[in-house]
This record gives sequence, structure tokens and C-alpha cells, in this order.
Amino acid sequence: MPTTTWNRHHVLSLSDFTTAEYDTVLQTAASFQEVLSRRTKKVPTLQGQVVANLFFESSTRTRSSFEIAAKRLSADTLNFAAATSSMTKGETILDTAKTYLAMGTDIMVIRHREAGVPNAIAAEMDRLSVRVSVLNAGDGQHEHPSQALLDLFTICTLIDPANPRLQLLKGKKIAIVGDILHSRVARSNIWSLIASGAQVHLAAPPTLLPKLFAEYFSEETGDSSQDLFTISSSLPLPHSPLPLIPNPQLFLHWQLEPALQDADFVMTLRLQKERMTAHLLPSLREYHQLFGITRAKLQLCKPNVKVLHPGPVNRGVEISSDLMDDPEFSLIQSQVTSGVAVRMALLYLLGSGKA
Amino acid sequence: MPTTTWNRHHVLSLSDFTTAEYDTVLQTAASFQEVLSRRTKKVPTLQGQVVANLFFESSTRTRSSFEIAAKRLSADTLNFAAATSSMTKGETILDTAKTYLAMGTDIMVIRHREAGVPNAIAAEMDRLSVRVSVLNAGDGQHEHPSQALLDLFTICTLIDPANPRLQLLKGKKIAIVGDILHSRVARSNIWSLIASGAQVHLAAPPTLLPKLFAEYFSEETGDSSQDLFTISSSLPLPHSPLPLIPNPQLFLHWQLEPALQDADFVMTLRLQKERMTAHLLPSLREYHQLFGITRAKLQLCKPNVKVLHPGPVNRGVEISSDLMDDPEFSLIQSQVTSGVAVRMALLYLLGSGKA
Amino acid sequence: MPTTTWNRHHVLSLSDFTTAEYDTVLQTAASFQEVLSRRTKKVPTLQGQVVANLFFESSTRTRSSFEIAAKRLSADTLNFAAATSSMTKGETILDTAKTYLAMGTDIMVIRHREAGVPNAIAAEMDRLSVRVSVLNAGDGQHEHPSQALLDLFTICTLIDPANPRLQLLKGKKIAIVGDILHSRVARSNIWSLIASGAQVHLAAPPTLLPKLFAEYFSEETGDSSQDLFTISSSLPLPHSPLPLIPNPQLFLHWQLEPALQDADFVMTLRLQKERMTAHLLPSLREYHQLFGITRAKLQLCKPNVKVLHPGPVNRGVEISSDLMDDPEFSLIQSQVTSGVAVRMALLYLLGSGKA
Repeated sequence: MPTTTWNRHHVLSLSDFTTAEYDTVLQTAASFQEVLSRRTKKVPTLQGQVVANLFFESSTRTRSSFEIAAKRLSADTLNFAAATSSMTKGETILDTAKTYLAMGTDIMVIRHREAGVPNAIAAEMDRLSVRVSVLNAGDGQHEHPSQALLDLFTICTLIDPANPRLQLLKGKKIAIVGDILHSRVARSNIWSLIASGAQVHLAAPPTLLPKLFAEYFSEETGDSSQDLFTISSSLPLPHSPLPLIPNPQLFLHWQLEPALQDADFVMTLRLQKERMTAHLLPSLREYHQLFGITRAKLQLCKPNVKVLHPGPVNRGVEISSDLMDDPEFSLIQSQVTSGVAVRMALLYLLGSGKA
Repeated sequence: MPTTTWNRHHVLSLSDFTTAEYDTVLQTAASFQEVLSRRTKKVPTLQGQVVANLFFESSTRTRSSFEIAAKRLSADTLNFAAATSSMTKGETILDTAKTYLAMGTDIMVIRHREAGVPNAIAAEMDRLSVRVSVLNAGDGQHEHPSQALLDLFTICTLIDPANPRLQLLKGKKIAIVGDILHSRVARSNIWSLIASGAQVHLAAPPTLLPKLFAEYFSEETGDSSQDLFTISSSLPLPHSPLPLIPNPQLFLHWQLEPALQDADFVMTLRLQKERMTAHLLPSLREYHQLFGITRAKLQLCKPNVKVLHPGPVNRGVEISSDLMDDPEFSLIQSQVTSGVAVRMALLYLLGSGKA
Repeated sequence: MPTTTWNRHHVLSLSDFTTAEYDTVLQTAASFQEVLSRRTKKVPTLQGQVVANLFFESSTRTRSSFEIAAKRLSADTLNFAAATSSMTKGETILDTAKTYLAMGTDIMVIRHREAGVPNAIAAEMDRLSVRVSVLNAGDGQHEHPSQALLDLFTICTLIDPANPRLQLLKGKKIAIVGDILHSRVARSNIWSLIASGAQVHLAAPPTLLPKLFAEYFSEETGDSSQDLFTISSSLPLPHSPLPLIPNPQLFLHWQLEPALQDADFVMTLRLQKERMTAHLLPSLREYHQLFGITRAKLQLCKPNVKVLHPGPVNRGVEISSDLMDDPEFSLIQSQVTSGVAVRMALLYLLGSGKA
């Protein structure tokens, strides 16, 4: 493990991550990536500690990734699924969290459909002066920091496997395409990519780019090259999905093409089919035609462009099926593998300080 | 671990627990409480043994507590949840239990909404002359022994942390407040508290105190100071919830105040909101007004009175929200922590005799 | 462990199992059976490896058996249940499998209600040239190889506990009774029993024997002594449940009695009550009268006949309740225990080759 001074007690948001913290996560994850290539993929680091996966919103992929990460650190895991929980018995979420605290949980990994729940639980833990750490595994439309960190790790290790670090992305053009409005993945990625010095180009249909942005645009232009925003550092929760103020690295587009032009990386977002029923989208076919990523559209990008997707993928909607399976372009499988290494790193960094 | 002669093969009920058995559980739990304060909260005691959590009735709290207790003893755990079980395929409960037996389960932790199911499974295991132990984790309105033992441990360690033992409660006044009629927690607690020599005062609305009691009361009096009952040692299952015969330590009240007067400990019970629909309660607001525990009502008790609740709590119903969070009065978090230690003790005592 | 040359990378079907492979499984399982009789029933064989139980169709018994087998080999386990899976989010099954691959899964145990799903996943894994192994835990009406192998192990260890091997069944008469049409258990058992040199007699009501068979029968005869079929080695999936060509070891009966006559072993199959609604059965009572196994009917068999059932059992339907519980005749509990040993053997054989 790299020697480091990691002082963060919870991982709730990337909004205030420092370059040193990003680099610590990236380097720690790189060490674990090496562990994962061994026959015995286990280290005794967190033996005797308890990681509770409190998934108030159901998830297969993220929960399994955290579970496997915890087990490879030799932690004991507890899984809580909302369906069978005492939540149905009227207990508050804070009381559920305090119950897991009282049982001896060391790290709580929390997913909830409401933004701000992990923050509220972390604040309560701090108020009680207890050592438990809270890790946000996705809260409403707010943030999903471990996903953004694994995306970052995937990209950085591609550029320099031996020494992944934030500054590798300086000056890179990265497109984020799709349902920006509802995406906690996009929100967390914007924080890390802006921090890295990359140029971040958001592309979405007008209905799926935050309404707040609309006022920054003139009616006449769909081209957003003059529309630059910075992300506010005090993110009010949970009502404002992405309040932005001008930032020279962030670009908004209501068409796909200007975002793809000369892009180094394209991050596609999952489209929740439920959006259709809310009349935010005309049809999946039209969405794919306008914003779906295909080989043809990738011609606009840099020659060695790579495509990311947080999964699960709607094949033929966000991305064409053949492109998704093409290892020359797709980093999707690599992201899943990075996810285990990055989550091991986060659990290690949060857990190893506990005495 | 304390040296002891523990001969009990199953823990189904506290009705026939001896003082020596109570004290063995309390002292063993105290040793594990110490283990839980270490960084590595794990001991190899039950390595290679299998603890199957057969929860035919869903539960988050109790199942997690048993799971974490088993893992800290290094046992392997199997979780069975009724929702996805073969029960839906028409298999009998005894056949399900025998299947887990045949797979090599060493200890079965069983919760079921019907009273007597753990007893029936234990009887079948004994008939088959197998070494598997059965631990009742709550059966219908019958008993919940591990909950009563953790309540006992919580109180006794408060009085004498170094040496928790049953006789510490001799002469203490303990109020049990709420839905006595439907509470397996109350039933198990009555056994242990009577055994300790405490004075046990039950307080509930007339609809939530066992109907069987009614015949012992004269119409004229709501004061039960002359109504003393002993618990029958042969508890018929599952029809009679709490058949009582006169006992000088047990008092019944249809108002809260005489139960609280000079009480050392107040045990509140969870109110199942379903009772409302059965017209057993007028409204939650009226219930809270009459039987909810508040700071004001605690004025009647001894100055250093403590409040317990098995959880999950309906805040503002059984107990006022601020009182629940006040560490000066509330033992609720402490109960959860005690639960892990007590369940480790029970699993250890049942499991360590197996060769 | 026996020294062996096991080259099989997946276990999807028994259709192409060799005698050497059957014997390797039987002998490896026998070694693990011995491990299971120890106090510490654990070996470090698969430490650091990950076994993912991907149960797209819910199951208590088979999943628990694989989970306990994996844990006793010291593997880490991941459980995936369709109910809470991202499948509901529109991801394809292959994508789910590839996600578990990318997380570092070493062995995937797969159950699905559609025949051929494990084959499709295994084919994809081979196409990707990855080392992950696929183990079919039951696919539609196709196969359930670990169940047939545990049945085989149960019978062979009964005949020669010290040296279970395929040829022990040569010349034995084995009846398979019940819902042949819908049974993946029957299909896998037919492969192994034919391979052993046993005489296999299928007995079922006409509606529950594969329709394909009908054309081989003359209208006049219910006696099938002249109706011999061999199983085709190219099993088309998923439409043809059991395409057969003449084989001198396989006999078909539309009555129970000729199948039971002088039988050494009787394998009963679970009757899905859903079949009733499809009008394939008149009533459970009539089914039991005609095809249910009772003490009286066993008089037709060899004196020391034994009865098997894959479970869960509908008592009083496939088998009379008293017979099921009679250890003189019933191997049902023994099958469950064998299941853990056989699954440990399969996981060991698939997993130990991985470097």
C-alpha cells in the first residue's frame, strides 16, 4: 500500500475531494488491482471488521461489488435489503443505521433513493462521536462517488497503468452523454473530471439536461460553446440536482455531435426507461438515433477514443450492441473490474485507521 | 470463558431456566462483550460449524444480530428467508429443517409466526438423536428468549459490569408497558424477571392484557395490587398466550401510573400498528397519551430509572422521541450491542459442546 | 483427494460424461464426505476464490447446498437472486454473467427457468477465453447434473461406501417414477444411469411422459417391453424435452407396476402442483393412488429396495408420508448430505485447476 495521510472519515461526495485524495484512492486501488490478479485474491487487512451494506434501494451490481471488495479484505459483511427490512415496520432510517452501529458495524455502505440520506446518517454518527464510516453507494440524483472513482481509475490506468493519477486527464476532452438530469453518476463524475483539469462536455436532449441550465441559455442557440459553468461547492440537498455557476472547463450541448468532436473518452449514462412514461423522451428508437453511441458517431472522436457506461446497459439504446462488445472501444468490463479494486481501496482507507 | 456445566441442548423458552443457567449466559456474554471492544472482534470458537438462520418470519434486526454473532465466532452462516423458500413449494417446516440438518447444520436459529414451531423442530431433532441445536428467535406470541436474555444482560451489566448475575435484580421494580397480549418479548421477560426476584408490574390497556386475566379481576377495581399471579410452568402451545396462577411478584395494571411508581426499569413494548385495524386501540395519539413513556411520566419512577425497548421503535408512540435519544434514560442502543454479545454466548454454549 | 486427470471446464450436462469422469466425481465426493464427518468441516482448497450463485429461478435447497459446499472449501460466495437483480432493469443475462466475470468470479453456479442458459453463458465465457467455470444448477426442463450426480453418489456409496464407482450399478433395475415430461432431474439421471449399465424404467401417466414417445408406441399396448430408446447425444435446446432413439437399457411404462417389479432403486420425482391447472392430472389423490410410492407397492420390488426423491417432497402425493420417514427404505436425507459432498467435489474439480 502507498504511504499516505488519509484523514477523510466518510465518502459522501466528491465535491470537496482534493487532488491528494484522488491520487491516494487511485494508487491504493492500483495496489489492490495487483492483488486481484493473484490466485488467492484475499488480504487480511480488515479481518474482524464489519461492513454493512445498507441498500434501501435494490441493486445487484453495486452491492455485489462492495460485498466482494469487503470479503477480499477479509471483513465480515452484513447485507440489508429494503424488501425484508424493519423499515416496513415504521422505524426511521437513522434508527436503522444506529441499530447497525450498535451491533458493531465499522463501515456502512448506504444506497437510498433519496438524496442526502448518507449525509444525514454520517452527520448523526459524527454527532454521536462514534468511529463508524459512511460510504455513499448512490443517493437519489445526488452522487455516486465510488462509481466516479472507478471511472477515473479505469481511464487513468489505461493511460498509465503503473502510476494512475489525476493529472493524467489534464486537457483531455471527455463527453458525458445521456440523462444528465437524473444521473448521480454524472454529478460525481463532473466533480472528479473538473478537478482533473479535463474539459467536460455534457450532451443530452433538452428535457434531460437540468432545467436550471435553461436560464443560462439564449433561446436562439443550441450551441453551448459560450455557456460555461462551475459547480457550486455547497450542493443543497436534495432539491437542486446540479446548480452550476460558470466554469471554463464545463460545456453543455443539446446535440451529441459537438460533444463527441475530438473527444478522448465518451461516458454514456444509463437511460431509465421510466423516463418514457414521464414524456421526457419521444421513443427509445429516436433517443438511440440522436444520442446513442455507435461506431459511425465515434468517427467524430479522437482515433483511440474509449467508451464507458456505468451499467446495466440497455443494448441498442445508450450504445449499439456491437460497440459495447468491442474491446477496442469499450471499457465497460474494465470498469466492473476497476470497481472491485476501487471499493477495496475506499474500504481500506476508511477502515484501516480504526483501532 | 467462565468454566461452567451447561447441559442445555436447545434454547426454546426461559420457563425452565435455572439461576445457574441465567448466570452462565450473563457471564459468558460479559466475556464476549470484552471481545467486541477489541479491534479484531473475532474468535475461532465455532470455526467449521454452520449456523442456519431459518427465518420463516422476516426480520432485519434479529437476523443481523444472530448473523454477526455467528460470524464473530467464525461460524459459517446460511440465511433462509421465507419469501424465496421452498415453503412455497408445499414442503412441511419439519422437512425444511431436516434438509438443513442433512446439509450439516450445527445450530438452527428459528423464527416463525406460529408459536411452538421451534419446539416442534427441536423435538424432531431429538427424536432423530442428532446433535443439532435449536435456538428460538421468536415464535408467534409465545417466547423470544434471546431478547429477554439481552434485556437481562443490559440491566445487570448496568448494575455491576464486572459481574452480571441474576440476583442483582432481586427486589427491583420493573414495569413492562404496552401490548402484553401479543408480546413474546413480554412473555420471555416475565420468566427471567420473576426468576431474578424482581417485582414485575405489567401495564396495558384492557384490550392488550391477556383476556385470561379478566376473570381474576373484580369489575370494580382497576387497581391490581390484590391480583397476583404465578406463571404456570407447563405452557400449552400455541393457544393460551400466558396462563397465570397467583404469584406474589407479578402485578397487573390497566393504567400506567401504578406500574411506573418507584420503578427501577421501564420496559416498553413495540406496538404493532396492525392492532389498530382490529379495533384493539382507539388511536396512536390516545395510546401515547395513556401509555407512551415521556420525561414527565418518568417523574413517577426512581430518579435513575432506565427505559428499554426491543425495537424497532415507533417514535412518539411507545416512547417520546427525545427520551429515546437521551442516553441518561434510554438503554435502547445498549440493548442492541448486548444482543450481539448474548447471542454469541448462546451460540457458544450450544455449539462448543459438539465434538 | 484422488489423483485424477479432470479436463472438464464446465458442468452443463451429463450427456457426454465419461466413466472416468463419473468415477472421479464419486471418489472426490467420497473424500469430502469424510471431511464432513469431522468437527471442523472446512478445507482451505478454494481460499480466495469466488463462487457466484446466480439463481435466476429461486431455490432454497440447491442454493444453500452450493453455498455450504463453497464455504466448506473456504471460497467466498456471492448470492444473486433474480427478485432483486438488475434483470428487472433490462440487462441481458449474458451481460449479468459478464459483470460477475469482471468482478473476479471463478465459478458461476447458474439456475434458470429456460433450458440452455448455462450453456449459452459457458459458450460466451469460452469465446472470451476466460478461465471462469459454469456449473448448471438446473435449467428449465433440460438438465440438473449435480442432482443426478448426488443421486448416483447416494446409491453407489450405499453399495460400496469405501469405493463408490459407476460400474456398481451395472445390471441394477432402477425405476424413475412421475412427471418425466417436465423433469430436468429425470433427464440428467437417465444419462448417468444408462452410462452405468443399469436398466432404467420410466413410469408416468401418459400426459407426463414426453409426447415424442407416443409415436413409438402402438395404440394397443401399454406394456413397453418392446419400446426401447436411446437418448440422442445432440440434445436440441430448449424445445425437445427428451428426444430418444432405441436403447436396450431404457424402458417406458404408462403404469407403475412393471417399473417397480424387482427394482433395486425407485426414484420418485417431484410433482409440480401447477400441472393440475394445466389439466395434465385429474387429482393429487388419483395420482397418489396410481403412481405414489407406498409400502404396499414396494412389495413388488427387490426386498432391500431404496427410494429416492430430489425434494422438496409433497408428502402423500409422490410418496406416502410414513415411507418417506422410514430409514429402512428412504434415502431422502442421505441424498441431501450427499449433495453437499458432491457439490464440494464439483467445485473442487472445476476450481482447483485455476492458477
